[in-house]
Amino acid sequence: MERFYNAPDTVVDEILNAVATTAPLRIAEPESGLRILIRRDWDKQNQGQRQVAVLSGGGAGHEPAHAGYIGAGMLTGAISGSLFASPSVEAVLAAIREVCGEAGCLLVVKNYTGDRLNFGLAAERARGEGLKVAMVIVADDVALPDSPQPRGIAGTVLVHKLTGYLAEQETPLEKIQQRAEAFCRRMGSLGMALRPAAQPGQPTAERSPELGLGIHNESGTREVAPQDADAAMQLVLEPLRDALADRHLDAPWIAVLNNLGSCSTQEMGVLAASLLRQLGIEQVTHLIGPAPLMTSLDMHGFSVTLLSSDDDIVTALDAPTSAPGWPGLRPANRPDTFSADTHQDHEALADDAPQDDTNVRTLERVIDTLRQAREALDELDARSGDGDAGASMQSGAEAIAKALAAKRLNTAALPQLFTGIGQLLSRDMGGSSGVLLSILFTAAGASLDQRGELNAALAEGVERMQAYGGARPGDRTMLDALIPAVDALKRGETLAQAAQAARDGAQATATLTRANAGRSAYVPESALKGVVDPGAEAVARVFEALAKSG
Amino acid sequence: MERFYNAPDTVVDEILNAVATTAPLRIAEPESGLRILIRRDWDKQNQGQRQVAVLSGGGAGHEPAHAGYIGAGMLTGAISGSLFASPSVEAVLAAIREVCGEAGCLLVVKNYTGDRLNFGLAAERARGEGLKVAMVIVADDVALPDSPQPRGIAGTVLVHKLTGYLAEQETPLEKIQQRAEAFCRRMGSLGMALRPAAQPGQPTAERSPELGLGIHNESGTREVAPQDADAAMQLVLEPLRDALADRHLDAPWIAVLNNLGSCSTQEMGVLAASLLRQLGIEQVTHLIGPAPLMTSLDMHGFSVTLLSSDDDIVTALDAPTSAPGWPGLRPANRPDTFSADTHQDHEALADDAPQDDTNVRTLERVIDTLRQAREALDELDARSGDGDAGASMQSGAEAIAKALAAKRLNTAALPQLFTGIGQLLSRDMGGSSGVLLSILFTAAGASLDQRGELNAALAEGVERMQAYGGARPGDRTMLDALIPAVDALKRGETLAQAAQAARDGAQATATLTRANAGRSAYVPESALKGVVDPGAEAVARVFEALAKSG
Repeated sequence: MERFYNAPDTVVDEILNAVATTAPLRIAEPESGLRILIRRDWDKQNQGQRQVAVLSGGGAGHEPAHAGYIGAGMLTGAISGSLFASPSVEAVLAAIREVCGEAGCLLVVKNYTGDRLNFGLAAERARGEGLKVAMVIVADDVALPDSPQPRGIAGTVLVHKLTGYLAEQETPLEKIQQRAEAFCRRMGSLGMALRPAAQPGQPTAERSPELGLGIHNESGTREVAPQDADAAMQLVLEPLRDALADRHLDAPWIAVLNNLGSCSTQEMGVLAASLLRQLGIEQVTHLIGPAPLMTSLDMHGFSVTLLSSDDDIVTALDAPTSAPGWPGLRPANRPDTFSADTHQDHEALADDAPQDDTNVRTLERVIDTLRQAREALDELDARSGDGDAGASMQSGAEAIAKALAAKRLNTAALPQLFTGIGQLLSRDMGGSSGVLLSILFTAAGASLDQRGELNAALAEGVERMQAYGGARPGDRTMLDALIPAVDALKRGETLAQAAQAARDGAQATATLTRANAGRSAYVPESALKGVVDPGAEAVARVFEALAKSG
Repeated sequence: MERFYNAPDTVVDEILNAVATTAPLRIAEPESGLRILIRRDWDKQNQGQRQVAVLSGGGAGHEPAHAGYIGAGMLTGAISGSLFASPSVEAVLAAIREVCGEAGCLLVVKNYTGDRLNFGLAAERARGEGLKVAMVIVADDVALPDSPQPRGIAGTVLVHKLTGYLAEQETPLEKIQQRAEAFCRRMGSLGMALRPAAQPGQPTAERSPELGLGIHNESGTREVAPQDADAAMQLVLEPLRDALADRHLDAPWIAVLNNLGSCSTQEMGVLAASLLRQLGIEQVTHLIGPAPLMTSLDMHGFSVTLLSSDDDIVTALDAPTSAPGWPGLRPANRPDTFSADTHQDHEALADDAPQDDTNVRTLERVIDTLRQAREALDELDARSGDGDAGASMQSGAEAIAKALAAKRLNTAALPQLFTGIGQLLSRDMGGSSGVLLSILFTAAGASLDQRGELNAALAEGVERMQAYGGARPGDRTMLDALIPAVDALKRGETLAQAAQAARDGAQATATLTRANAGRSAYVPESALKGVVDPGAEAVARVFEALAKSG
């Protein structure tokens, strides 16, 4: 399976059914064979007396067009054909009959022969029944500059929005038609695709990237070979701006960036940035999208619509609508920036920090211990991980040694000392262990500062380390030595007893063959048997060093 | 070029820049190297005194997560890392400092080691600075049921919405954290993909379709080979519902359908229909999406999140937000249907319709003319089209003949006669010509009914035919004979003079080698030289027949 479809023949009805199930719509009984969706709250005898009903539709395969644009302030209803095929005259006529009240009905039609004829005949038949019906034909595609019949593409969605807004304002039918026709003259669209659309059940055709291809896979104006997103955007924007300049249309623009099908959110974001950069942000009042507005199945491409902006247009396009497919109008402005506050806590690390000789000596002993342990820890780690646990611990120790020598650590105040060590470990030790130990010291420092209880502070540090790291006791990590040691201290035991608890905990990791966290998690169980976890070993050695000082 | 990217290294900053340009945000100065976006209207000294600031973030490549969820009622800000890589501690800390007021700050973090550690250390450092910070870790992925650390995926977006809503309600930090944790226990998510994500600049890896793969392309739980969209949805729903049943969670569900990257709108529509059908519409209170909520670059896949619904949750998720990426919560209901009104106009076609002998004879003469013309018209058409113009005209004539014989056409009243002929041509003649002639007769019938002027009605019919058909005089179509004939009648000339005008117009088409509309548009110019357009020829013959009757 290449794509998420069921039978090709059921695609359209499945899509419309999902829409009708999750939006306040009425859908024509399936037995009728007609694909008509209407606002559930529309009553032609009520709103229809004052408000023009706006209908649109056409072939399927362009979703969210057109059913996704049904809602207050946009379409009253939509008529869908089969994939890439116009709906029948009967379907359009039935829709008109369903929605058209005294105020009349406007049909918004894309400029394709089938749509023009079928909507046209339905309009004439409705008129013959005494209904007031007008039609606006949208022909925004500038791909074929000499064509007497430019195609209607993504710009059609803007016409839905404009006319839906005007209808809600109770603008008369003739006036809406005039406004819509004037609006159509202010815009142009152009698309390009790297890959064409594939009909459900069929493979993607082998075609070169093309500029100006239609939303039914009609061939493009020419093959292109853009090198990157900027080049692709330039290929679209140059002829589009030329075509609009020929019509004396100019900035400021409302720009629409339409996902023709299967572009990722990230590609569309890159294209949006490129569009804004190439147009110049001061030339763009608003951006619509990036979003799928008028798609062509899974075509891997995009289209740009430029609309010469004015205040009335902005009001209409910016008005609220309940239509789920409308992505909204977003003002484009040079981004506001702010200066990120990245200062280190200077109370914790400072020049000429106060010193306490006993604490300095204790720290030096720990540092020496870790220097001497490097080789043994690396060896243990080589059997369960990537063999750098000792080097990593030593790099943390050296960072502390350096700050100690420079008298940048306040060894006279434990809260500041802990916080300062936390900062050093985060910045200079690296790896998950560096961040985890930094969390331990940072949390302990903050706790000590706020509550002044050393053992409780250490316990809190360990608790946070465990919470963020996600390891549990028995997972073969530092925690297997740390937790017993800190528990001992909390029970009021001596540093020597805590060191013994750490040592026991470390030794016990050699019997653990299940590793759910940390580096050992990726090693077969047999390889872990009899091997003490290097992190736990380091913790035991540090506590032993502390006990000697104490 | 396979995808719309520029340099792989610039993708994230381009995307974020586009977001910052089109949403009311502040972005950290680019020189800082930190990717932080904050609500422009957020002031920690103001709202931040009463409202908790909600931050989220993580690796990039999941857009619209997380920057697209910034807005009133959702995130206060977001911190982005590089593609699939956690942001730094410094970036998270700077964001906390920027937004955290007296009410505190909540971090919503997806359950990945890097995110947990970096957000965790930043939270501890912020606490050390006296800021109130709490964290919620989202772990909604049920793909690995025995994992002690389930991944956070699309469900995270629901937590953004819930916590953003609660924050706006001025709920205290601790309470929001509790509510969010309880909320997380009510949901689960599972994804599948046909093709994995490709890093910018790299090709798509060759991998089988997989169930339960992560949003960073982590391997799935197993390879799968669904035959269609329904099967794919079933593969996802079964383990997901099992996992939720194990936690004693049950319907009614809020269901989320997330586009993991490059699924088309149509595929997502088919999947939405399948999801609703398989869950059972009465088991689903609301659907969120289908939409890209938490993507994985261009992964061709989807995920489903099921959340056990209750009224408080619906209130929170349904509350308005200005975040552009939030697709909204849509109630799921069995579709309302209506009975489409497809009746024919019975005044125009009826049993025992009134008859006028003169008109019947005229019609019979026209029918005979078209029968006799069939071969000649087909021959002309063979030189410029597909050779069936005569057959097509005759089929229209036979439809009229049949209705005439059955006395179903009201020949005693021209408006009804025209309208009836219009209906017959639309239904039985087929092709563009059938619709175009139907438009002519339908519009003329309506005009005649309303204004009673035959020649004006014919002119109006021709004008409509031209408007909808899009052909202009000189385009080698029926219009080249019709327009001169109808113009002659409008000038008060006789039917004979009109017939002569039609004949002259038809003859002139033999000199036209440019064809912009109709079937001749696809034929080389040289082939058209000296060939009368078959449509124009038919019109001329019909007028000649009418002139004989008159």
